[in-house]
Amino acid sequence: MELLRTLLFVPGNRPKMIEKAKGVNADALIFDLEDAVPLAEKATARRMVSEAVGSGDYPHFKLFVRVNALTTNLLPDDLEAAVGRNVFGIVLPKAEYAEGIAEVHLMLLERERRLGLPEGHTRILPIVETVRGVLNVSQIAGCHERLVGLAFGAEDFATDLGVERSREGTEGRYPMAQIALYARLTGVVAVDSVFSDIGDDEGLEENARLAKQLGFRGKLVIHPRQIEPVNRIFTPSEQEVEWARLVVAAFEEAEARGEASVAVNGKLVDIPIAERARDLLALAEAISKQQSAVNFQKESEK
Amino acid sequence: MELLRTLLFVPGNRPKMIEKAKGVNADALIFDLEDAVPLAEKATARRMVSEAVGSGDYPHFKLFVRVNALTTNLLPDDLEAAVGRNVFGIVLPKAEYAEGIAEVHLMLLERERRLGLPEGHTRILPIVETVRGVLNVSQIAGCHERLVGLAFGAEDFATDLGVERSREGTEGRYPMAQIALYARLTGVVAVDSVFSDIGDDEGLEENARLAKQLGFRGKLVIHPRQIEPVNRIFTPSEQEVEWARLVVAAFEEAEARGEASVAVNGKLVDIPIAERARDLLALAEAISKQQSAVNFQKESEK
Amino acid sequence: MELLRTLLFVPGNRPKMIEKAKGVNADALIFDLEDAVPLAEKATARRMVSEAVGSGDYPHFKLFVRVNALTTNLLPDDLEAAVGRNVFGIVLPKAEYAEGIAEVHLMLLERERRLGLPEGHTRILPIVETVRGVLNVSQIAGCHERLVGLAFGAEDFATDLGVERSREGTEGRYPMAQIALYARLTGVVAVDSVFSDIGDDEGLEENARLAKQLGFRGKLVIHPRQIEPVNRIFTPSEQEVEWARLVVAAFEEAEARGEASVAVNGKLVDIPIAERARDLLALAEAISKQQSAVNFQKESEK
Repeated sequence: MELLRTLLFVPGNRPKMIEKAKGVNADALIFDLEDAVPLAEKATARRMVSEAVGSGDYPHFKLFVRVNALTTNLLPDDLEAAVGRNVFGIVLPKAEYAEGIAEVHLMLLERERRLGLPEGHTRILPIVETVRGVLNVSQIAGCHERLVGLAFGAEDFATDLGVERSREGTEGRYPMAQIALYARLTGVVAVDSVFSDIGDDEGLEENARLAKQLGFRGKLVIHPRQIEPVNRIFTPSEQEVEWARLVVAAFEEAEARGEASVAVNGKLVDIPIAERARDLLALAEAISKQQSAVNFQKESEK
Repeated sequence: MELLRTLLFVPGNRPKMIEKAKGVNADALIFDLEDAVPLAEKATARRMVSEAVGSGDYPHFKLFVRVNALTTNLLPDDLEAAVGRNVFGIVLPKAEYAEGIAEVHLMLLERERRLGLPEGHTRILPIVETVRGVLNVSQIAGCHERLVGLAFGAEDFATDLGVERSREGTEGRYPMAQIALYARLTGVVAVDSVFSDIGDDEGLEENARLAKQLGFRGKLVIHPRQIEPVNRIFTPSEQEVEWARLVVAAFEEAEARGEASVAVNGKLVDIPIAERARDLLALAEAISKQQSAVNFQKESEK
Repeated sequence: MELLRTLLFVPGNRPKMIEKAKGVNADALIFDLEDAVPLAEKATARRMVSEAVGSGDYPHFKLFVRVNALTTNLLPDDLEAAVGRNVFGIVLPKAEYAEGIAEVHLMLLERERRLGLPEGHTRILPIVETVRGVLNVSQIAGCHERLVGLAFGAEDFATDLGVERSREGTEGRYPMAQIALYARLTGVVAVDSVFSDIGDDEGLEENARLAKQLGFRGKLVIHPRQIEPVNRIFTPSEQEVEWARLVVAAFEEAEARGEASVAVNGKLVDIPIAERARDLLALAEAISKQQSAVNFQKESEK
């Protein structure tokens, strides 16, 4: 499973923000060609994004491009701008059907062949953000090996349902449960929605914590100041990592003795708990590698 | 989508309540032949209801008749009493299968032909109020074009599940999410359950607000005093309408300039937000038309 | 529906606990051959459990044996030890597919025939405790007439989802709703997960109350001190039973008069409420019979 704690949206038509994004500490950037870009600027944005991802200036990020939905006539040109060696994947809004993703796959394949990239090089992160998408999660999940995750779009979902998005996310509970379970079932990352109120730090943290508790591994963010708190919430704490080390070590010794459980600090550790500990350690290691890459990059820029 | 904020149950065997209902401000009346009417009075109730709906005295309401469930032998006579020119639809309790609704459709069709009414004149509002009904919502929703909505019956659902209905509605969260999503998917109104405690104004409001947040557009009510608060909750506020007007106007200007987003009062408005605003304006207009009809009726009665 | 308010886990390799379990007031005992027993002690545990269930010393309990999952190679030997005249059923962990249960059925059948037991003597209580199991509840429920219930395993589920189990059970809401509804649909008992923190009485009670509200009828327990509070929560109160008696009596008189509803203490009682009252009385009677058996046993031991 890929490390995708924070995915920062960067408007594809804003040179300053594209430049500034180089220095942020997100796990991924999403250059946006969709909602942030007015129709009149789509062509300009495609050029800017294409140049940015081709520049090699974002080596320590997973780079995504959010293209326009399959139902628009903008998608082919968007993909033309998006697909490339440095691009980890595309973010596909308003995902509703497995067939739609199969269609996008063919369009990607054609471009990958033309550019001499390995087939399947470009991953897909679909955003489930319509009523139909939510009710079709079971068919979207696992429909293609390009899928790297399933993201939830709370704002558009609320609109499509005809309600105002609530701070507590009442209306999103069922969609989130569906997305988290199917992501886990198919071994991909569940990515939570943006939190739109940039000034509401407490709301952001509550929002991210709830998502984590429901099984999400990361969150879309729309402002650099949201990166630190979200990274923090989706990163295991030092105590957790310490606990996981103890548990894994104790459990491995127990297994070597032919035992299926062991006491750690007075608490019984059995297979499921040992698995959870291993999961935590793998996550901590991925985070540490990512942090090294960021630091190396920052050093080399000095 | 029809305007159905409040649907008031009127016992079919109570002449005073049938009379009194003429003056209430609900969007719809439901003359009840089911739970409110003891077996010994079903025939009397049918006559009273048939007379009431035939009288032309309820011109500004959508008139429904709640018939007995398909599993009873009471349904054919109920439909005989219910179907008529002034009757907007029937409320079908304990809906569980698409097949059941297809059966009711044929019974309605036969009566409509006999009475010279347009085929499909009589709409159906099924109440999902059993465990099986909840688990079959996906097959009930959209199974017939007569469907005008999907209603939730929290009391019977709790009983069928074997629990006491809670004030917070914990046990109803999953059913409500299912009903709201499938209603929206199929373009019909999600109608929330009755709130039985007539004296508990605060409980009623919380209950209605939760339903609204989950995507419901209206609520069954059992007492005239419940109408005003429920209407209010399912009516957009003046500020909301004002905001929606601003947003739609600004967005249309932006679109004319070839732009896909615009700032309104310092906040970005993109396509989903503009759609939500249009939705609010359409609702406000439907409410204003309904209110004019009520007022005209009250004037002409003076 | 069987009475299964409390099912106490008893480690199969702990003679003292096996002995002590004779005196507890749970509705069922589950002798555990799975998570509580290290690999090196599986054989010993099977002998101890086989002896205990064969002893006839647990006459007033429903006796279960938790076997190891179908995916292990331990299951055939576990079933050899488990199946017997006094054993009410097996608890099957990590249930994920109807096919798996059909396989276990065949293994049980072979043993029942060999032992001269009636075919189907051994019931199955599957534990749904993986993401896949939760997403497959609709196929597991009702897949075989041996099923006596559906149990939820919150700890393993949280681990499989990759989260830490929360005290409020946020991550378990959707799984619990699914399990409760499908259990009810197929007429079997929904059994809630263990609550691991043995010292947290308040947490246990909140946990059990939430489960009850969602439609669960009982709970797995891991310590004798958890039995009394959980039994209490899943037992109707005296007032509830008194109310149910009044309601059923009044409703039967009303029915005899040809009426479908009646006022009891000023509140309207219709068919769904009368059904709920009957349900409560049946539960109270089953509890009373169980308590008599326990008391008779305690008397005869004096």
